[in-house]
Amino acid sequence: MSGSVVDPVDHDAPDGALAAPGPLAPGLAARRRSPAEEARTIVAGGTLGALSTLTATGDPWGSLVTYGVLADGSPALLVSTLAEHGRNLLGDARASLLVAEAGHGRDPLDSGRVTLLGHVERPAGPVAEAARAAHLAAVPTAVHYVGFGDFSLWVLRVRRIRWVGGYGRMESTGAAEYLAAEPDPVAPSAAFAVAHLNDGHADALLAMARTLGGYTDATAAVCTRADRYGLDLWVSTPRGKASVRVPFGEPVAAADGLRAAAVELARRAR
Amino acid sequence: MSGSVVDPVDHDAPDGALAAPGPLAPGLAARRRSPAEEARTIVAGGTLGALSTLTATGDPWGSLVTYGVLADGSPALLVSTLAEHGRNLLGDARASLLVAEAGHGRDPLDSGRVTLLGHVERPAGPVAEAARAAHLAAVPTAVHYVGFGDFSLWVLRVRRIRWVGGYGRMESTGAAEYLAAEPDPVAPSAAFAVAHLNDGHADALLAMARTLGGYTDATAAVCTRADRYGLDLWVSTPRGKASVRVPFGEPVAAADGLRAAAVELARRAR
Repeated sequence: MSGSVVDPVDHDAPDGALAAPGPLAPGLAARRRSPAEEARTIVAGGTLGALSTLTATGDPWGSLVTYGVLADGSPALLVSTLAEHGRNLLGDARASLLVAEAGHGRDPLDSGRVTLLGHVERPAGPVAEAARAAHLAAVPTAVHYVGFGDFSLWVLRVRRIRWVGGYGRMESTGAAEYLAAEPDPVAPSAAFAVAHLNDGHADALLAMARTLGGYTDATAAVCTRADRYGLDLWVSTPRGKASVRVPFGEPVAAADGLRAAAVELARRAR
Repeated sequence: MSGSVVDPVDHDAPDGALAAPGPLAPGLAARRRSPAEEARTIVAGGTLGALSTLTATGDPWGSLVTYGVLADGSPALLVSTLAEHGRNLLGDARASLLVAEAGHGRDPLDSGRVTLLGHVERPAGPVAEAARAAHLAAVPTAVHYVGFGDFSLWVLRVRRIRWVGGYGRMESTGAAEYLAAEPDPVAPSAAFAVAHLNDGHADALLAMARTLGGYTDATAAVCTRADRYGLDLWVSTPRGKASVRVPFGEPVAAADGLRAAAVELARRAR
């Protein structure tokens, strides 16, 4: 079953602001990325984040940092101890890293971001080598200052994770779930796939909304999101508009597998 | 004189990594934006930032926020108390807001950002009205949730400001300087002006570097930045490459004044 993470916050909302029509027939059980998978995917997709540290007086201090990612999802930072955030980390190892998805030109609060809270450690031995390699792979220009004596590698050991996918899509998760999860392999191609589906396959999306999503009275459907488990559709009906999930038969395992999965979904919807 | 803020950090650098040839003749005294002006300009140019707050256990917590700007440069936030950062602010008013300039597709650490540290207040009366208007002007989509009972306005009262313009360009400043400074009126058109100068006016830039910048042996010059006080040029010489500042005769006062100022600079360089 879904274990849905689409759990609208209990806003004290003006009447009707959050109302949407339901399906007229049962839809398919819709698997979604877990909060840990969402978090790993956002972190894997970026190289730039906001680091929160503590000043000597305990004030919360935000700064821009670049990061790479170790195999277990731990961020590898390269920070100058001459900079304020570097001095802060030397004084108190507690830190959080905020990473936001690249903007889509829409409402920035309706997009994904994740906060990783934990503490930093100076890696040693093979971990230091891996952290250096991960950072340089993500931030090639770091080669120009990785040799400066004041720059040092830090690994953020994550203790608590807060993922926000947009309005009403948010959940916290723990370190074990985060470290064990996989980034979604299709994330890098998802935006292209969504645009392609909307540009050339409106009929297939409408069939999916009617047959697989239970919106038998749908008059149009637009794809708003694609991931390894399925598609999110924004459906127009005479009763109003609603969001519905249509799942793939099997999760996509390969980075280039989204197209075949969407074709199969269209076939099932006919 | 310049009161230059280009003050290379004393990195323990590999030999030669920071070396650049100097001018062969005296250049013009080059005024630059003050750190407070840089900070006001970056804050005025954005609507999205990273808020650092303190959790109940004193951990530094980073989250994505939108903001508007009051006339004195104080950020106006609209935050849900159901969200973690809202609960944090209710528990401890200390906060910082990190705002980064829009990326230019180059090294993200070689671009401007600013951290505003202070504490938040719930505004009342006319300040609340102004904060609401400033937030909605910057974030029109906030009209959809400004009426939700859990969302509340906060004004960040800034105490300390850290501006970083890129590698080696950084300075701290105080609240009085920040609140009194003006955002650069030409900032919104600067990127276009830089591209236009480089695309069509390479000869004029070279003449500026030679005549006004003191690089009499310059063989090429590229404009890297424009602001109300002048242009930054990246100059090629047989001795190597260097950055030089060429100032306008008068600071540009109007948003559309950059073109006339650059034309006048080219005339003086001939």
